[in-house]
Amino acid sequence: VGSDTGHMAILGYDPFKHYRGRGPFEARGVGLEVKPGDVAFRCNFATVDENGVIQSRRAGRIEAGTDQLREIINEEISEIEDVQILFKESVAHRAALVLRGENLDEHITPTDPHVPGVEYWKSEPLEGYEDNEAARRTAKILNAFVERTREVLDDAPLNEERRAEGKHPANIVLPRGAGTAVDLEPFEKRYEIPGAMIVEVDLVRGLGEYLQMKVPRVTGATGGPDTDEIAIADEVVDSFQKNDFILANIKAPDLGGHDGDVAQKIAAIEKVDRAIGHIIDNTADMHLVTMVAADHCTPCAVRDHSGEPIPTIFYGYGVTPDGVQSYGERACAQGMMGHFRGADVMNLLMNWAGAAEKFGA
Amino acid sequence: VGSDTGHMAILGYDPFKHYRGRGPFEARGVGLEVKPGDVAFRCNFATVDENGVIQSRRAGRIEAGTDQLREIINEEISEIEDVQILFKESVAHRAALVLRGENLDEHITPTDPHVPGVEYWKSEPLEGYEDNEAARRTAKILNAFVERTREVLDDAPLNEERRAEGKHPANIVLPRGAGTAVDLEPFEKRYEIPGAMIVEVDLVRGLGEYLQMKVPRVTGATGGPDTDEIAIADEVVDSFQKNDFILANIKAPDLGGHDGDVAQKIAAIEKVDRAIGHIIDNTADMHLVTMVAADHCTPCAVRDHSGEPIPTIFYGYGVTPDGVQSYGERACAQGMMGHFRGADVMNLLMNWAGAAEKFGA
Repeated sequence: VGSDTGHMAILGYDPFKHYRGRGPFEARGVGLEVKPGDVAFRCNFATVDENGVIQSRRAGRIEAGTDQLREIINEEISEIEDVQILFKESVAHRAALVLRGENLDEHITPTDPHVPGVEYWKSEPLEGYEDNEAARRTAKILNAFVERTREVLDDAPLNEERRAEGKHPANIVLPRGAGTAVDLEPFEKRYEIPGAMIVEVDLVRGLGEYLQMKVPRVTGATGGPDTDEIAIADEVVDSFQKNDFILANIKAPDLGGHDGDVAQKIAAIEKVDRAIGHIIDNTADMHLVTMVAADHCTPCAVRDHSGEPIPTIFYGYGVTPDGVQSYGERACAQGMMGHFRGADVMNLLMNWAGAAEKFGA
Repeated sequence: VGSDTGHMAILGYDPFKHYRGRGPFEARGVGLEVKPGDVAFRCNFATVDENGVIQSRRAGRIEAGTDQLREIINEEISEIEDVQILFKESVAHRAALVLRGENLDEHITPTDPHVPGVEYWKSEPLEGYEDNEAARRTAKILNAFVERTREVLDDAPLNEERRAEGKHPANIVLPRGAGTAVDLEPFEKRYEIPGAMIVEVDLVRGLGEYLQMKVPRVTGATGGPDTDEIAIADEVVDSFQKNDFILANIKAPDLGGHDGDVAQKIAAIEKVDRAIGHIIDNTADMHLVTMVAADHCTPCAVRDHSGEPIPTIFYGYGVTPDGVQSYGERACAQGMMGHFRGADVMNLLMNWAGAAEKFGA
């Protein structure tokens, strides 16, 4: 499960039905519109040598200045053939791309091989789409875009500086995660309550934008291990003034899992614990139903997302208590709610909140 | 979950597929036929003042004499436009109505606002059905029916008596729960065993009628906290002479939940406990598989149905025992069967009864 599909499921939008690729969420998350017919991508700024061999997939973990590179790209590459090029940077090495024009198709392969030391890939139609004219055209335009970024970024002032400092230049953009506009019923229309998402990554923020939820940005929420969890918790508490549903996500535990760093993950989970305590302490008069869970597992042993059940707490007035006394995989396996699907979560919460309609009489 | 949808699920008829509203079950439960094209309603006898403001939604909890009112309605209101009016009283303030004619549609709003002190509602097409000619016609005929009941009931002898006694007259009929005929495969055809339902409320009895199950009435089964649970248990035992499957439901615990009355609910559950003991004691030689469950929760804290898991016992020869030693939410959460959907129950029972067909070889 991914962060996008995990969040979709928790919010009651079955990803098997609705998911059309990561690109559109990433693009919406950085503020690019994705219209029906557009094809959207998430991108990395990366470093390649003169032979196109990747030296760093994240341009030496570039932290700042990608807005200057975006300006160059927007100026130099606004159109390829008759297709409009919309590009915007996100945090760190990340960015998003939207292709807009007639006759485009998202069934094409990525350009990022996901490992350094090899040449970046040329995009081509996915298996089964080799004869799809639109997919062939989209892959061709995407490859042309990548080549053009190599040309216009190489001597950018930022990259000259980085070379002088012994850092990897951000001299190419590698798109992947091709997807097209999704048609999701707005959250408030579906559940008849206003909702907000307080999240740190643009991918998930983009989902919130799609669902027409409020997606406030929190000062101090870095998306990293140093994030200000109390600032996030305060925003949750404040947001209940205007919303009846809040989904908040702190990214740090996932990073510890990806890095296989147990100490970092423990510290991140302690941050989440403090944030939850802060929320509970400051919402005591609100009669909330609180759920503690995750969008997916990221075990340190796996260093990537995995598919195990997520231990989940439901807490609040109207929630039947069971005998479970602690939070974790083993303890929660004994719980009264047993195992349930992510896509059932909203039904459970609406039930306990007394907001579910009776089916039948 | 409702009582109708809950019972449908337990009997293996997926309510998401088959449910078409409460009205048809209620009508069948009082003995009115509901044919394809008919629109059926549950109704309340109620009390309104001269301005149409509801003084009592249940006509002062009227207990007797509604058969006299039904006779008046049947005589005076047999047709509106070219639509046939079928009306019959149920227990207490309850009744059922069937509209029969061309070009009717069940997607219309109720006339009962569910609270006293306000005017009763005019029926109209549901949101999205405003342009549906049949729905508009059905709402119009329903509203005409309600007006006619006001006219013919006001000076009914029973109501004159009630007024003289200081009681609320039953001077209007308020239909709601519009639904149309459902097409359910008969129980015996589906499971190849004869079945009976021994239940106290007409809504669920109507479902049994639809499924062409036997639905005997039990003397002493009042549907209230004073019901004779031993008479119900005796009927269950007797019914096994001619049936291989019995569903029995005692209504009282649900009432305690709706009233938020913990003591009443405990007393009701003790009645159920005695009934089960009586059945077990008197069927020892029958090799039964017994299931103890409920069609839904009605927590005293919620005072309405809710969506939590139902603790369930399976007991009998062939049922693998597990480690659970008591009955309740927390104890049963540890059980061997984990969590399952209502619609899977019949498969489980048929399996333990040795009556399921092998799927595969």
